Amino acid sequence: MTKEATEVKDPKIEQEVERQLSVIRMGTAEIVPEDELVKKLRRSIQTHKPLLVKLGVDPSGADLTLGHTVVLNKMWQFQNLGHRVQLLIGDFTGMIGDPTGKSETRKQLTREQVLENAKSYADQAFKVLDPEKTEIVYNSTWLAPLNFSDVIRLTSTMTVARMLEREDFQKRFAGNLPISLHEFLYPLMQGYDSVAMRADIELGGTDQKFNLLMGRMLQKEFGQEQQIAIMMPILEGLDGVQKMSKSLGNYIGINESPNDQYGKTMSIPDELMIKYYELVTDVSVEELEAIRAGLADGSLHPRDAKMRLAREIVTRYHGEEAAKAAEEHFKTVFQQGSIPDNIPEVRLDAGTYWIVKLLTDTNLCPSNGEARRMIQQGGVKINGEKVDSAETQIALEDGMILQVGKRKFAKILLEP
Amino acid sequence: MTKEATEVKDPKIEQEVERQLSVIRMGTAEIVPEDELVKKLRRSIQTHKPLLVKLGVDPSGADLTLGHTVVLNKMWQFQNLGHRVQLLIGDFTGMIGDPTGKSETRKQLTREQVLENAKSYADQAFKVLDPEKTEIVYNSTWLAPLNFSDVIRLTSTMTVARMLEREDFQKRFAGNLPISLHEFLYPLMQGYDSVAMRADIELGGTDQKFNLLMGRMLQKEFGQEQQIAIMMPILEGLDGVQKMSKSLGNYIGINESPNDQYGKTMSIPDELMIKYYELVTDVSVEELEAIRAGLADGSLHPRDAKMRLAREIVTRYHGEEAAKAAEEHFKTVFQQGSIPDNIPEVRLDAGTYWIVKLLTDTNLCPSNGEARRMIQQGGVKINGEKVDSAETQIALEDGMILQVGKRKFAKILLEP
Repeated sequence: MTKEATEVKDPKIEQEVERQLSVIRMGTAEIVPEDELVKKLRRSIQTHKPLLVKLGVDPSGADLTLGHTVVLNKMWQFQNLGHRVQLLIGDFTGMIGDPTGKSETRKQLTREQVLENAKSYADQAFKVLDPEKTEIVYNSTWLAPLNFSDVIRLTSTMTVARMLEREDFQKRFAGNLPISLHEFLYPLMQGYDSVAMRADIELGGTDQKFNLLMGRMLQKEFGQEQQIAIMMPILEGLDGVQKMSKSLGNYIGINESPNDQYGKTMSIPDELMIKYYELVTDVSVEELEAIRAGLADGSLHPRDAKMRLAREIVTRYHGEEAAKAAEEHFKTVFQQGSIPDNIPEVRLDAGTYWIVKLLTDTNLCPSNGEARRMIQQGGVKINGEKVDSAETQIALEDGMILQVGKRKFAKILLEP
Repeated sequence: MTKEATEVKDPKIEQEVERQLSVIRMGTAEIVPEDELVKKLRRSIQTHKPLLVKLGVDPSGADLTLGHTVVLNKMWQFQNLGHRVQLLIGDFTGMIGDPTGKSETRKQLTREQVLENAKSYADQAFKVLDPEKTEIVYNSTWLAPLNFSDVIRLTSTMTVARMLEREDFQKRFAGNLPISLHEFLYPLMQGYDSVAMRADIELGGTDQKFNLLMGRMLQKEFGQEQQIAIMMPILEGLDGVQKMSKSLGNYIGINESPNDQYGKTMSIPDELMIKYYELVTDVSVEELEAIRAGLADGSLHPRDAKMRLAREIVTRYHGEEAAKAAEEHFKTVFQQGSIPDNIPEVRLDAGTYWIVKLLTDTNLCPSNGEARRMIQQGGVKINGEKVDSAETQIALEDGMILQVGKRKFAKILLEP
């Protein structure tokens, strides 16, 4: 075959390459380099050999939030495209921890702790990933047997200056904060994991770029085809500004109750909706496009789009039934005349009041006549219960909620 | 015993400490720290337990010069003081070499090459050291079995900034020249050698300070008593300015002939004599003081001091007989009317000349009469041979040396 002949592209294969690419690109921050990814995909399709996708997992034993699922979701998409995915548990690194004891994030763990944490991680990850199609590997398998000569070979591939380009090292070095020499070994270990696994693709957040590229560099050094680094954006939390994190309290946990997940999702800013759809749901490329278009041309109300988002999220972690129930609950409490968070407070002396006088004293009604009319229409509630008669006597309680119509509220605070 | 009681010092022991110190201090550039050395010496004398003195040897297979023997000489002094000395062959480091292949000084060697070079080094070193009292150890014994976790522990003891303080690293970093990460491991290996050997003292040149202190740091890290770093000055070569080295050609090799060693020693500047005595001979502290005093008060002629120095050096490497013979040779050739290095050159056409005309044509004699007189007095030599008759005909040769009296010379250069 001549060179030209080999370059004739099979349209069916190219179509499949394009299809896979559109799924992979969805929500992705960066693909380094995309042309090599295209080649790998094409070969995979031609030879029916799936690509190996790596995701490194720190076995620190955390409860996952939606923020953690961004990469898991991309892994899940790769599973659906027919590729092999491997969760790499950093058990070797975990068991070493930080020998200086200075790093909170690198506590030294026992073998048992590492395995327990790995299991806990997998249990949570399997709410996104297909457990049947997920391989779990441990880096102690290949890192523990390395000897001093191997480590020297590994370290000889990097320069000090290049290592100091990593953002956190750069900042600490510039700020005269100590960097322990062994910290330079961790990125190399992560890179060597890719060599040992012969990874085609490594997933990570954009903050992992340096480490993902280390895998490429080391694979080249070891004479292997280089992996593609696919970086996912950092997911903002409920506040819409800061990275979703437990410590900031702006998170949705994957182990939280359906009602909490639903309600929290409804509280994210509208601008974040599409990003959430892209990064933490399993809607298809086409569905996402339809939602995006609907919001743009006004045919889809943002509230409805957000309710669907909330449903998608709860469905993933608790199933469809639970999602429906959570939506019902939300509608009842928050949409159909539920009590808003902030309502005017009125200070009154303890005692028993005539309902009509109470409604005028609290300014909920402008006059006795108006108060009577609202009661007769069934528009007056006390602590959520309808008041049937305009002659009712009310014994005040601290924190009692008065409601007139859908929008007017008052909370009674008794004078001490 | 009370604390005070333990501090009462035994005068005999203190005297011996002082005696040993004066030997150790002789020619030494720096002792870090000297007070700890005093404690170690005192304990050694009290308990009759010799100190362990370490000297690291790079098995690169070089012929030794007097420059290399400066530390060996100090080792030899420790042997004489009754301490244990260990030559540490860096066979592990040698077999790894520089994986990047960039370093000429760190060529990767086979096991056989390393052992051969080590033997060659020992053979040469035993011209200074007492072979019976010298232990040879190999760092592969303890470095080869280290695994990745051990290396991480080792590297965790150092910071990047501290490592960059080493002069050569600092210069390269500042000059944007690459420093391979594995280069940071070599000082740690050298330091760990001290841990594995439980060295009390490590010897090295002043250029080794960083690495010697690394041994102290790591011993502390591993809960050991810290070694003392004893640094020897760098020996200047024959030019009296630059470090003695093969590549500069300003060296005295320990395998060179007695005549070469003697002659080269006689060519060093007078100002360097004492330093050479201190660093590369086995004269005692007292003898050295006598020589120093003799030179100072003029009772010892510098030439005689230098001849003794040359004798001492040749004796060490070739024995007393050879030293005497070399001295005789030197006297004959260089002192009793030998030919100076730089003599006037005279260009003449090839041919046969009358000796008297030759002496006037070359301006060695002002007149024919003077030329005849000099010949008759036996003061004329051609190529070192006396000319007996004023009638002699000389067939000129290129490079022929004419000599009149003790001081007048000419070299014949034939016109092409």
